Amino acid sequence: MRLSILKEEIINRQQTLYSSLQEKKIDGAVLFSVTDIFYLTGFNFRPSERPVVFFMDPQGDTHLLVPHLEKEHAEEYSQAQYVHIYPEYPGLRHPMEFLKDNLIEVGFQNKVIGIDANGYSSPKGYQGASLKDLINVKKFESLRGWVEELRVIKSPGEIELIKESCRWGNLAHRLLHKYSKAGLSEIEISGRATHESTMMMIETLGNGFNPHGEPTHAFYRGQIGPHSYFPHSQTQNLILKKGDNLVSQSEASVWGYRSELERTMFVQEVSKEQEKYFTLMREAQKIAFASIKPGNPFSSVEKNVQAFYKENNVDHLTRHHTGHNLGLINHEAPFFDLGDERIMRPGMVATIEPALYVENLGGFRHSDTILITESGVELLTYYPRDLESLIIQ
Amino acid sequence: MRLSILKEEIINRQQTLYSSLQEKKIDGAVLFSVTDIFYLTGFNFRPSERPVVFFMDPQGDTHLLVPHLEKEHAEEYSQAQYVHIYPEYPGLRHPMEFLKDNLIEVGFQNKVIGIDANGYSSPKGYQGASLKDLINVKKFESLRGWVEELRVIKSPGEIELIKESCRWGNLAHRLLHKYSKAGLSEIEISGRATHESTMMMIETLGNGFNPHGEPTHAFYRGQIGPHSYFPHSQTQNLILKKGDNLVSQSEASVWGYRSELERTMFVQEVSKEQEKYFTLMREAQKIAFASIKPGNPFSSVEKNVQAFYKENNVDHLTRHHTGHNLGLINHEAPFFDLGDERIMRPGMVATIEPALYVENLGGFRHSDTILITESGVELLTYYPRDLESLIIQ
Repeated sequence: MRLSILKEEIINRQQTLYSSLQEKKIDGAVLFSVTDIFYLTGFNFRPSERPVVFFMDPQGDTHLLVPHLEKEHAEEYSQAQYVHIYPEYPGLRHPMEFLKDNLIEVGFQNKVIGIDANGYSSPKGYQGASLKDLINVKKFESLRGWVEELRVIKSPGEIELIKESCRWGNLAHRLLHKYSKAGLSEIEISGRATHESTMMMIETLGNGFNPHGEPTHAFYRGQIGPHSYFPHSQTQNLILKKGDNLVSQSEASVWGYRSELERTMFVQEVSKEQEKYFTLMREAQKIAFASIKPGNPFSSVEKNVQAFYKENNVDHLTRHHTGHNLGLINHEAPFFDLGDERIMRPGMVATIEPALYVENLGGFRHSDTILITESGVELLTYYPRDLESLIIQ
Repeated sequence: MRLSILKEEIINRQQTLYSSLQEKKIDGAVLFSVTDIFYLTGFNFRPSERPVVFFMDPQGDTHLLVPHLEKEHAEEYSQAQYVHIYPEYPGLRHPMEFLKDNLIEVGFQNKVIGIDANGYSSPKGYQGASLKDLINVKKFESLRGWVEELRVIKSPGEIELIKESCRWGNLAHRLLHKYSKAGLSEIEISGRATHESTMMMIETLGNGFNPHGEPTHAFYRGQIGPHSYFPHSQTQNLILKKGDNLVSQSEASVWGYRSELERTMFVQEVSKEQEKYFTLMREAQKIAFASIKPGNPFSSVEKNVQAFYKENNVDHLTRHHTGHNLGLINHEAPFFDLGDERIMRPGMVATIEPALYVENLGGFRHSDTILITESGVELLTYYPRDLESLIIQ
């Protein structure tokens, strides 16, 4: 069973990048983005103070520059043709000096070079020169967003991994739901559901699907009772109480690909007021699903949701747009946002999560992962959405 | 019991920043670093496509610009005096336009303004203008590394939190050790140890010490048997086998402050070869501890370690420097590295982890968290370091 991106697909991504460079008359490329390096080489590493750099030379050959400690790791796991090393950062000689040697060696001088950033950056104590101060080239062109753009349309292989992620996210969520009881704390519930669903996933799938660490995660992130009013609340270890509304979240990583599943749930009982906002939120989500039409702008979905909320006099209770794309990162562009005029295209994977936030009561948000198809939308997450299924006994 | 940084200390940090700005004749500051914003305001948030910006105005007053969804969250948890909002990203009007309004309103035009980056950046689909294209000021000065420098010397309050982190890291490691058995997989062991130590920590300390999510973590990260040869291996879900050498890691977060504890362990038996490298590594760590002298450069520690390894003809088996500072981030500058001439000062907290990596056999690394004191070194982690204690039965 295939639960990874095949080597052929990774090579194909490299070739696509090479063709795009040639089209724009760019001779070579230097990339620092961790996610883009994984996408282009399959090499997953722990970003640190030590730069890891991908470059594509004028022949289209692919290179990684890594610290010595990553040499054999990169050789084993990456699809880069050449792995270069520097001893250490800061080191007696700066890693960027080694990069300079590499770039000169592969003929970057006096060429047009695409770069995704001026240099490496990291909050972990790194300091270093920018590429422009390092090497004389004919011209630097910005490649910012180029690989991100390649990543927007998911391949059949990527969609398969995201669908697999949805299955295990569903299990993680089911266990979170099952173990949630009044009187228990969120970390207690979350830790148990996460650990057990992770174990079931690896016992079922075996190894190899997961180069990114622990595969599943189900949690509340502090979205419990009135604290769920904060859309980006942090884990508080709150205790669940009768009548609380909860906003849950689960996710699973399959070879780095993610999905998102969130539900508004209630502990034992639901007030009339809670039911009112729940029903409106659920209706808004249906409107959003129905608004997914390839060829239309992303903004159109948000407009429909906002119009519905306005009709019902709750538009002042929204705090964020209806959703975002995702894939290797949990939030990717484009966004279902009033200001996003980019066009929906088949193969895009996104979340739909129009939400309401009511002070002193809490948050109301379902999030589902969807695929944009030729004809409209395919819902990838399938956890029950109705009120009755979401009351915790 | 105090397990957080007091409001007074946070205000004091802001005042220190203000004094440094005045000293350099800088009128105001704009910061984007997530960690620095937490350090200066106590506001912990989930970084996303939506910019969060801290700025200090010419009067020294502190401001946050956040997306609408973070408004009440920031008001509740931050020590910023003013919280400004923009509706959403991308939104009908770009967040940077709102920032521009804010900066003009507080009088940044024609002033000298310090910035830690040219603008907000995020891999999560964000695009936006740089500050220089946004607003006319007299001059921009780089503040890159300024707050990082303030963070280097830990206050008594910070050291107390790091010591508390060491205690819970010790428990997490003890459980990891206890649950490790030949025939079990790393995720199985790690998940159980993490979940149980997390629960014990929160049951013991109560809430409030942890604005950053789950507090403890103990794991092997793929450093099992020959795979531990890769210093920055990723979790593989390998099965522990008799004779494997393992490199463990545990950590705990106390109000965002971290510690690091790593041990080389063996499953049931130890070969002569394994014992040889273990003993050398342990000796090197003792040499490093003894080399910690405030007033000396960081490089001096690494020089002593390298000299010892060279004497014993194993210097070719090192893959990284002896250690790094840490605090709110797991790796911070300075580094115990041949190229780091910065001076050891009392109040710095760092790891000591000189290591050896042997192909087809594995990695040999203990990591301990230490405090640099007026007279030398205080070892903060205290898990047994001797061979006998680290053989898993």
